[in-house]
Amino acid sequence: MDVGELGEFGLIDLVTTRFAPTAHVLLGPGDDAAVVQAPDGRVVVSTDMLVEGRHFRRDWSSGHDVGRKAAAQNLADIAAMGAHPTACVVGLAVPANTEVSWVSELTEGLALECERVGARIVGGDIVRSELITISVTVLGDLQGRQAVTRAGAKPGDVIAIAGRLGWAAAGLAILGRGFRSPRVLVDAHRVPEPPYAQGVSAAIYGATSMIDISDGLVSDVRHIGIASNCSMHIQSDLLVVEEAVAQAAAAFNADPLTWVLTGGDDHALVATFPARSGLPDGFAMIGDVRDGDPGIVVDGQTVDPAGGWDHFRS
Amino acid sequence: MDVGELGEFGLIDLVTTRFAPTAHVLLGPGDDAAVVQAPDGRVVVSTDMLVEGRHFRRDWSSGHDVGRKAAAQNLADIAAMGAHPTACVVGLAVPANTEVSWVSELTEGLALECERVGARIVGGDIVRSELITISVTVLGDLQGRQAVTRAGAKPGDVIAIAGRLGWAAAGLAILGRGFRSPRVLVDAHRVPEPPYAQGVSAAIYGATSMIDISDGLVSDVRHIGIASNCSMHIQSDLLVVEEAVAQAAAAFNADPLTWVLTGGDDHALVATFPARSGLPDGFAMIGDVRDGDPGIVVDGQTVDPAGGWDHFRS
Repeated sequence: MDVGELGEFGLIDLVTTRFAPTAHVLLGPGDDAAVVQAPDGRVVVSTDMLVEGRHFRRDWSSGHDVGRKAAAQNLADIAAMGAHPTACVVGLAVPANTEVSWVSELTEGLALECERVGARIVGGDIVRSELITISVTVLGDLQGRQAVTRAGAKPGDVIAIAGRLGWAAAGLAILGRGFRSPRVLVDAHRVPEPPYAQGVSAAIYGATSMIDISDGLVSDVRHIGIASNCSMHIQSDLLVVEEAVAQAAAAFNADPLTWVLTGGDDHALVATFPARSGLPDGFAMIGDVRDGDPGIVVDGQTVDPAGGWDHFRS
Repeated sequence: MDVGELGEFGLIDLVTTRFAPTAHVLLGPGDDAAVVQAPDGRVVVSTDMLVEGRHFRRDWSSGHDVGRKAAAQNLADIAAMGAHPTACVVGLAVPANTEVSWVSELTEGLALECERVGARIVGGDIVRSELITISVTVLGDLQGRQAVTRAGAKPGDVIAIAGRLGWAAAGLAILGRGFRSPRVLVDAHRVPEPPYAQGVSAAIYGATSMIDISDGLVSDVRHIGIASNCSMHIQSDLLVVEEAVAQAAAAFNADPLTWVLTGGDDHALVATFPARSGLPDGFAMIGDVRDGDPGIVVDGQTVDPAGGWDHFRS
C-alpha cells in the first residue's frame, strides 16, 4: 500500500501509535501542538532538514537507517550544547506513491534513536511532495547548567574529541564506487553513532566550548576558533585513523587523513577544556587553543575552510 | 545572484542578520542549537511543512507572502493551545538557482509575522533541494495556564469562532481561474490573518477546548467532537458569509457556504466555553456541544469528514 491510498490521517494514526510518552511529555501527538517539560525554565532547540538524493539515497539506506540518521544529527546538536534531549517533532514530505512500509520504517528509526537518549517524538506534520524531505527539530534540557557554546574557548585550553572521524566519509566513498562493504564503514555512513553521553559529561566537566562535527573537523573546529576569537591548533598525529578507514583509503588510493580532517556526518563532539582540569572519559586530546588569528591551524599550517563542506558550493 | 553562487554560509549570514533578540531568546542563531526561555517550566511546540506547488506557488505569492503564511499557520497552532509564541526555527530546502532576493523576502516575511506576536526566529537549517520546501517549528509559553486541548468540550458548552472563514478558499478559487482580484480575497489566500490574541483570551476566559481551522471548519471541529467524545452542533445561519466571499461565489456559480464550511487556510480559532460564562471579545457563537455520536452535525445533519481536506486523497 502507498501513502496516497492510506491518506494523510491514516498515515498519522499509523506513525503516532509508535510514540510512547515519558515524564517529559505533558501532551503528546494529536492536538494543535505538544507540551513538553522544560524543568529549569529554558529549552534548547535545533532543527535539520534531509533531502532524498542529497542527504540519503533509498537504494543505499533503509527507511530505518534514514530515520535514525535524521534523529541522530539533531540529537548530536543538543548534546553539543551539553544538554539532554527531551522531545522531537518531525516534518515529513513524501510522494503519494511512497510505500507505507517505508514511512513506518522511517518512523521506527526516528523513534528508536530518540529513545536511545531518553527523548520522544511528540508531534509532526505529513505533507505530499515530489521529493522525500524530512525535517527534525529536537528540544533539550540543560538541567540547570550553562549552555556550552562555540564562543568560550580560551588560549591554553586543550582541544579534545569524543567519537569517530572519517568513517562516514569512507562509507560514502565505498557506496559511491558501487561496493557494499566493509559493512562497518558503510553502516557508519548510513547511521552515525554520536557520543551522546559525552556531551553532558563535557558540560559537567567544565568544557569551555563544544561543537558537533557534521561538516568535517576542519570546518567545524574553525567555527569555534572564529566564535571564540582564538587559533585552534590541531596535531594530526593525535588524530586516530582507524584500521578500517586506513584500509579503505589504501584500496581507493585516497588519503585517510583527508577523510578524518574533512569528512562530515560522523557527529563526533569536539570540546575545549582548561588545561589543568584533565579530560572526561571518552575524550582524547587532539590539540590546544592559542592566541592568534581566529581559525584553525593543522600541524602549524592555517587551513582554508574550503577543505570543509559547504552544501551549496560543493 | 542565486543561492548557489552565494553558498550556504553566505546565505545563513544574510538571513540571520534579520533576527533581533527578545528577552525570551537566551542564545540566538549561530551555534549548534538555540536556547529559549520557558518561564513556567513547560514549552508548547508545533511544526508544519510547506511545499512549493502544493502549499504555495511563486507566481501567485511573493517570497514575503510565503514567509508570512509559513509562520502564521504555526503561530496559529500555538495560539490554539492558549499559548504565547516565543520562538521559531526554520528549515529551508531550496534549489541552487533560487534568487537570493527571494530567500531574503521569505525570511523577512517569516521574521515579520513572528514579530507581530512577539516571537523571534532563533535558528534554522538551509539545504539544497530540487523543490522549495519550508519547515517551521514554533515554541510557545503557556504563562502558567493549562493548555487548551481538543479534548475538553462538554455537553452544554457554546461553540464560538474568532476570525474569518471561506476567505482563503475564495482567494484560491479566484487565482485558480486566472484572476487576481478582488484583492482582499486573493490576499487572504496568500497570507492568513489568524486571530492570534484571541487564543490567549480564550484560555484566560476558561475555554474548555480549542482548535485552529487549517483544513476547514467541518473537518477541524469534528476533531474536537471526537477528542471530547461529544457531538458538535453547528448552525449554519450563525456563520458569517462576508459580502466579498458571497460575491465571488456568485461570480463562479459556487456555494459560499461550502467555502465557509470546508475551506481551509484561514486559521480562525474555534473554541468551546461553558454556556453561562459568556464569550470573550472577538468570539461569536456558531453552535453548541451536545451528547451524541462524537463528530460534527451541521443544521441537524451529521457531516462526513470527506467534506474537509485530506492532503493525500484530495
